[in-house]
Amino acid sequence: MADRVNRQWLFKSAPKAAVGPEHFEWREGPAPRPGAGEVLVKTQLLSIDPANRAWMNGATYRGQLMPGDVMDGFAIGEVVESNADGLKPGDVVEGSLGWQDYSVQKPRALTKRDGKYDDEMLIGPLGITGLTAYFGILDVARVRAGETVVVSGAGGAVGSIAGQIAKIAGCRVIGTAGGAAKCDWLVRDLGFDGAVDYKAGGVRRALKPLCPAGIDAYFDNTGGEVLEAALALMNMFGRVACCGNVSQYNTGAPPAATSGVPGFLVTKRIRMEGFIVMDFFQRRAQAEAALAGWVKSGALKAPSDVLLGLDQAPAALAGLFDGRNKGKMAVRVG
Amino acid sequence: MADRVNRQWLFKSAPKAAVGPEHFEWREGPAPRPGAGEVLVKTQLLSIDPANRAWMNGATYRGQLMPGDVMDGFAIGEVVESNADGLKPGDVVEGSLGWQDYSVQKPRALTKRDGKYDDEMLIGPLGITGLTAYFGILDVARVRAGETVVVSGAGGAVGSIAGQIAKIAGCRVIGTAGGAAKCDWLVRDLGFDGAVDYKAGGVRRALKPLCPAGIDAYFDNTGGEVLEAALALMNMFGRVACCGNVSQYNTGAPPAATSGVPGFLVTKRIRMEGFIVMDFFQRRAQAEAALAGWVKSGALKAPSDVLLGLDQAPAALAGLFDGRNKGKMAVRVG
Repeated sequence: MADRVNRQWLFKSAPKAAVGPEHFEWREGPAPRPGAGEVLVKTQLLSIDPANRAWMNGATYRGQLMPGDVMDGFAIGEVVESNADGLKPGDVVEGSLGWQDYSVQKPRALTKRDGKYDDEMLIGPLGITGLTAYFGILDVARVRAGETVVVSGAGGAVGSIAGQIAKIAGCRVIGTAGGAAKCDWLVRDLGFDGAVDYKAGGVRRALKPLCPAGIDAYFDNTGGEVLEAALALMNMFGRVACCGNVSQYNTGAPPAATSGVPGFLVTKRIRMEGFIVMDFFQRRAQAEAALAGWVKSGALKAPSDVLLGLDQAPAALAGLFDGRNKGKMAVRVG
Repeated sequence: MADRVNRQWLFKSAPKAAVGPEHFEWREGPAPRPGAGEVLVKTQLLSIDPANRAWMNGATYRGQLMPGDVMDGFAIGEVVESNADGLKPGDVVEGSLGWQDYSVQKPRALTKRDGKYDDEMLIGPLGITGLTAYFGILDVARVRAGETVVVSGAGGAVGSIAGQIAKIAGCRVIGTAGGAAKCDWLVRDLGFDGAVDYKAGGVRRALKPLCPAGIDAYFDNTGGEVLEAALALMNMFGRVACCGNVSQYNTGAPPAATSGVPGFLVTKRIRMEGFIVMDFFQRRAQAEAALAGWVKSGALKAPSDVLLGLDQAPAALAGLFDGRNKGKMAVRVG
């Protein structure tokens, strides 16, 4: 068999503010060979997520990336060589395959998929994205029919699904997103009851009339001004599901401070809770069945924005923070 | 029966920063007479709490005080006249009796006590103070044996009991308090494993070596620098019970902003939850039995600082924020 060429994006240096192509380095070389008990995986569809940016500056739920590391990323791939029981060439797998064509993996680091769904479904509504939205809305925010739910970053991959799940659960749902066009899209295409353009300023003032009965639950992808506005407008016993802090990842500023904490938490008995989807993985099958059913019935739309070619990965990540994507951002490695 | 004289402290104006006697006005007049279905209660022991200060500037879990209102406060009293079934002169009751000698009350606003405990027990470990500590540590922070628990405002009424309950539950307990003398007292007299003087500065640096295994639960009476330090040192799945925000009540500053929120909540899956003791009152008898047992066995000390005379009430409240009290601050009305 001819040697396979492995194209890779290495992490070069930590951005001081906005991430761009200058923080990565392109390298080409021979693909690695799997050892005993290992498989060689070809990366097919790479998930581009706000968390990728966070790893470049510090440890989060994984360690900090170090210069020279292959840039990490979740992806769907295909087994092309196997020295491991239970996996054979042609099997579709998912895992942290990284920004590269080929990687050697141990089976325990991979999840085998059955080929029932295409890779955009697997990386979107049935992947980390959809599961994060599902468990965040139903298990952390614990929304109930008739409640008012606000979702920030509602134009993004997780937020767009989170808001739709809250609608399916019978809630009034208001999203925040950047720009009037994205706000229109939330209401017209995804069925949100209202949307606020955070870039227009005055988030709290804009949110208030859209939530005449106050806010019962808030799904927070951003932190910052929207979080502060939601806490101010929140009802007694409100819940905040803290999913991410994207307003802070791409700035050079020191960690954000949030006003109203702990004051509003005490006076309004608010529960604010961070979560990571992996903590709920023992219930993945249940969530996946629900999500697949909603997609099939048309109740849940899962838009994606797929760039073509591994060379596009840095631009795709930068684009997340420019707000260019509607829904799931991904790169088809090619 | 000769007319009773009713001495009262009226709320005069909202403090811009530190509360003092100038924010109250003394008035004397005839005591009111109870109508049908009402009782006249003589205030005996007045609870002085940080929340009293908060009411002066805004609504919390009760509405904002208005100038001219009798200053509100929780107290133990004795029924002196009764036109209501179920209450007779001599009965000991508790409720929001206010900063005054006499008040007319409806029975449903009072809780009748059985005289088994003296009034300092009733207002301290068996009252709002002890119940707040009990439910906050066990139900909100959900401490478990072997965990490290930090309590801020540990020299105060609630904090001193919260820390001791965490010790009884088998935790390593570190308190923060103002001044070396109070810190010594926490360790020597109340059995805390360590204490940090927040007035000496560098709370996080001082707390870190006292919590070598990180912090699992934090009982927050203060907000501010101690909250930020606790979030930074907190372990995965840590819990923050938000009981109060005393670092903010007595300043003229705008509402505090807390750094590390929501960042640490996401990366460490922290649950931060505000609570108010009234939400747990359906389980009051259970908590009271436990607290009384611990006091009786000597496992729980409930120190109090009682000033004599209703005229002392404004000074007692101001003293809470000067940190003069060790344990429960109260005023014996006389």
